[in-house]
Amino acid sequence: MPALDVDSANSAPPRRGRPGYDRAQVLEIAVALFNEQGYDATSVADLATRLGLTKSALYHHFDSKEQLLALALDEALSGLEGVLDEPAAEQGSAAERLDAVLRGAVRVLVDRLPYVTLLLRVRGNSDVERAALERRRAFDHRVTALVEGAQAAGQVRDDIDGPVATRLIFGMVNSLVEWYRPGGPVDSARLAHDVVAVALDGMRTR
Amino acid sequence: MPALDVDSANSAPPRRGRPGYDRAQVLEIAVALFNEQGYDATSVADLATRLGLTKSALYHHFDSKEQLLALALDEALSGLEGVLDEPAAEQGSAAERLDAVLRGAVRVLVDRLPYVTLLLRVRGNSDVERAALERRRAFDHRVTALVEGAQAAGQVRDDIDGPVATRLIFGMVNSLVEWYRPGGPVDSARLAHDVVAVALDGMRTR
Repeated sequence: MPALDVDSANSAPPRRGRPGYDRAQVLEIAVALFNEQGYDATSVADLATRLGLTKSALYHHFDSKEQLLALALDEALSGLEGVLDEPAAEQGSAAERLDAVLRGAVRVLVDRLPYVTLLLRVRGNSDVERAALERRRAFDHRVTALVEGAQAAGQVRDDIDGPVATRLIFGMVNSLVEWYRPGGPVDSARLAHDVVAVALDGMRTR
Repeated sequence: MPALDVDSANSAPPRRGRPGYDRAQVLEIAVALFNEQGYDATSVADLATRLGLTKSALYHHFDSKEQLLALALDEALSGLEGVLDEPAAEQGSAAERLDAVLRGAVRVLVDRLPYVTLLLRVRGNSDVERAALERRRAFDHRVTALVEGAQAAGQVRDDIDGPVATRLIFGMVNSLVEWYRPGGPVDSARLAHDVVAVALDGMRTR
């Protein structure tokens, strides 16, 4: 199915619905519930209960549970893809671009934490999930190409395979969803610094 | 509840049971099923079906589904705790000990992949799960102490909080369960090298 865009959905003509929620708010509450109890285990009735709406009122906002999932996954993926299209990811040396991509990915993860959390739990159980996994793979390939470019330029060590290095670095980045909570003592710029410090420069003093 | 030990369970006097499976094999198959469909979603009837046993034959091996979970989580945790008690983790400089612990953790993760996978999915839904999370936290605290010792000794950069550094490094290590499959092109020694290379020495060339 085609990727849906949350922003264009939000700027579409308003649909009938109960006052009190716009589409973005319904999506936010749905994603929180999916993360709490699992997407597959969440019914439209559960979601209506959480929102205090009838099922038919909820269907005024969205066509299906799967549409909510598609919008939520697009929110995460379009954020990550956007990082690769930013000027900082396209200018400078390969190592500088990799540095920028890592910082950008941490920023997206912090800014869109519930959406990225949902994305990371997707296992490919439906066409929507498989399409999201395909976009994740395409993102990974673009990052791997950057790692390999930095290796070819002698800026990044070449004794680790590019795809393995990419998986290790994003393993570190993605693990943030397990413990990072916005509003705590570590802000996203600090966190981006720490990730780059560990992954690119290493913990050991030079 | 007290931690159970798989080895002592295996060396206990044999219990009645169907020929064809010993306790360790039942545990292995149970863990694979828990990882496939989730522990909470797996019934004793599901497990009996997978094993081709009746429920009562399965109860000759184990008292409860929760006992299987406790044994499985102990398999993962005792492996990780064992790494901290190895000579290589107790000798040499703090940075050398941290290096040894990281390599050991990767080795345990590869050797006991299904058990560690199960451990990483535990969310604290029962006393058994909460006890496992408590042991994970204690392990993390011991690693953090090692990181902070290496920082105090000037061997590891001190511009990152010890607990954050520990989370980032183990985020990387734990992410291996998402993609690493034994028997593939990357063996566990190679993987341990790559993790240490990224986390301790950094990707950027010096």
